[in-house]
Amino acid sequence: MRESYRVAIVGATGAVGNTLLELLAARHFPIASLKLLASHRSAGEIITFKDEHIIVEEVTHDSFGDIDVVFSSAGATVSRKFIPTAVENGALVVDNTSAFRMDADTPLVVPEVNMDAARKHNGLIANPNCSTIQMMVALKPIYDAAGIKRIVVSTYQSVSGKSGRAVMELVRQTTSALQGKPIDLELFPHQMAFNVAFDWPFTDSGDSEEELKMVNETRKILDDETIGVSVTTVRVPVFYAHSESINVETHEKLTPAQARECLAHAPGVTLIDDPGNLKYPLAVDAAGKDDVYVGRIRDDASIKNGLNLWVVADNLRKGAALNAIQIAENLLC
Amino acid sequence: MRESYRVAIVGATGAVGNTLLELLAARHFPIASLKLLASHRSAGEIITFKDEHIIVEEVTHDSFGDIDVVFSSAGATVSRKFIPTAVENGALVVDNTSAFRMDADTPLVVPEVNMDAARKHNGLIANPNCSTIQMMVALKPIYDAAGIKRIVVSTYQSVSGKSGRAVMELVRQTTSALQGKPIDLELFPHQMAFNVAFDWPFTDSGDSEEELKMVNETRKILDDETIGVSVTTVRVPVFYAHSESINVETHEKLTPAQARECLAHAPGVTLIDDPGNLKYPLAVDAAGKDDVYVGRIRDDASIKNGLNLWVVADNLRKGAALNAIQIAENLLC
Repeated sequence: MRESYRVAIVGATGAVGNTLLELLAARHFPIASLKLLASHRSAGEIITFKDEHIIVEEVTHDSFGDIDVVFSSAGATVSRKFIPTAVENGALVVDNTSAFRMDADTPLVVPEVNMDAARKHNGLIANPNCSTIQMMVALKPIYDAAGIKRIVVSTYQSVSGKSGRAVMELVRQTTSALQGKPIDLELFPHQMAFNVAFDWPFTDSGDSEEELKMVNETRKILDDETIGVSVTTVRVPVFYAHSESINVETHEKLTPAQARECLAHAPGVTLIDDPGNLKYPLAVDAAGKDDVYVGRIRDDASIKNGLNLWVVADNLRKGAALNAIQIAENLLC
Repeated sequence: MRESYRVAIVGATGAVGNTLLELLAARHFPIASLKLLASHRSAGEIITFKDEHIIVEEVTHDSFGDIDVVFSSAGATVSRKFIPTAVENGALVVDNTSAFRMDADTPLVVPEVNMDAARKHNGLIANPNCSTIQMMVALKPIYDAAGIKRIVVSTYQSVSGKSGRAVMELVRQTTSALQGKPIDLELFPHQMAFNVAFDWPFTDSGDSEEELKMVNETRKILDDETIGVSVTTVRVPVFYAHSESINVETHEKLTPAQARECLAHAPGVTLIDDPGNLKYPLAVDAAGKDDVYVGRIRDDASIKNGLNLWVVADNLRKGAALNAIQIAENLLC
């Protein structure tokens, strides 16, 4: 264990990069030096971290010679190209892209769920997909208490999960819609203002890549190939925080009261479950917060051992930057 | 069968009332006379139907003496008070509220699904909840082909399902949010702009009334108490059209191709299912249309006989006014 670390961020100018910088500062991550890396296009930008002005550099294979810890979130293509170099140079890499998540020798980690797996790393740890992370934090206590046979989940995902520019596009689209003007599409395949839509590439099965990520990552993180997972991922006109409607079939019976008891003391979870008084997790309340919010825990009488839950978390924090930092903190600090 | 009918609309000034008037005109419903009824507050308003200016009258027990057909959509309390009088006066009533839906001697009808039940009416036919209707139109062909064991559905419901004033509140909230001003709540219990939320009264089970409606009405319409139905209803910041993520477990195996074949020729259904070319039902496309749009039909590999579907329909048309008019047309014309 060292006292402080030479840190590099790949994708420093993106939405997740911004949140990484905010959280590294707020959590007093022990930083000896900070290198900010991005594509050629963003190189030369100046970012202020604490009181220091740092010039963003273009990421190259020479970027990692003097680096202890890398957080990477510039997309799978960039990670595939540069992360192996960072690992060869001896850095500990937490990669927030899908590039290495399903590789057998790369741990895929949510600290509250499978930190043990992270300790077996070979220099590289993958951060799961945002919508997977919050579902795992909410379901692990239930998995431990009663086992999980099957999950049916439908998501309500915010536009910041796409990018910071997507947030601005929703603002522009909404303004146009309110003014009765035509909606211009730049990043989104469809109108997102006052609409719900699909916003991920599709596979031959008809599932989107986002849906398959949630299926495969869930099984890998819980290290349980027997779990059935059926996923429908949907983009909604919300800026920050993803919401999820989760139906779970457990092996053993777990009443809503028992599930609440499990979740009330679970790490990383805040239970808000008093619908009679209009208390349950809401995206606008979870935005900017660290925890995974769980509520609307109900018996599902349509099967013997069924539960419904509503799970909300900030997709840029616990769904991305925070989870990555927590992995590094757990391994290093 | 008469040539034309003396029609009354209870709740003529509401969002469903407006759509009823639009559709009665567009469909050339055989109207001999049209009486527009509403609460004391709205009495005196003038509504133009075709080229006729009609003064809205306050609904009373004396409103139904010379009426053949009543469409009622002014809320359950108004229907409970006045609809029995209309029935006693010999009118055929299609009631769009929840007042009588679960009464054993009141048929609950979606014409594409159970028109036979409507023919056993005693003067009163209930129109189902908007989110139930579109699910029934989409699932009936699957039910007939393979039987249905269990449904898990999460909804993405538009604000017009609440009221026309709720549409204006979403406009106001969105404008405030974009200007960074505080969000005023009038009809909604929570911020709806750039948020997803729950917007129905809750029962002691933790289910909302809207969720229980979908459970109970599904079983009544399909006349099958063996079907398991698990529902999570969610309000999204969309003006018109409800979307539904539906997971179905059938008794017999039905492949996605077989399900598409069933739905391609189903009454009231338009199949849009080519995700590779970004073709699937979207709320903004379904708004103002009559059909129920079905797409994203996928195998659910988490169970033996599982299918996922995405179902979208205009909640004011097929979800309310259109379905009610179709019931009357089928019985009268």
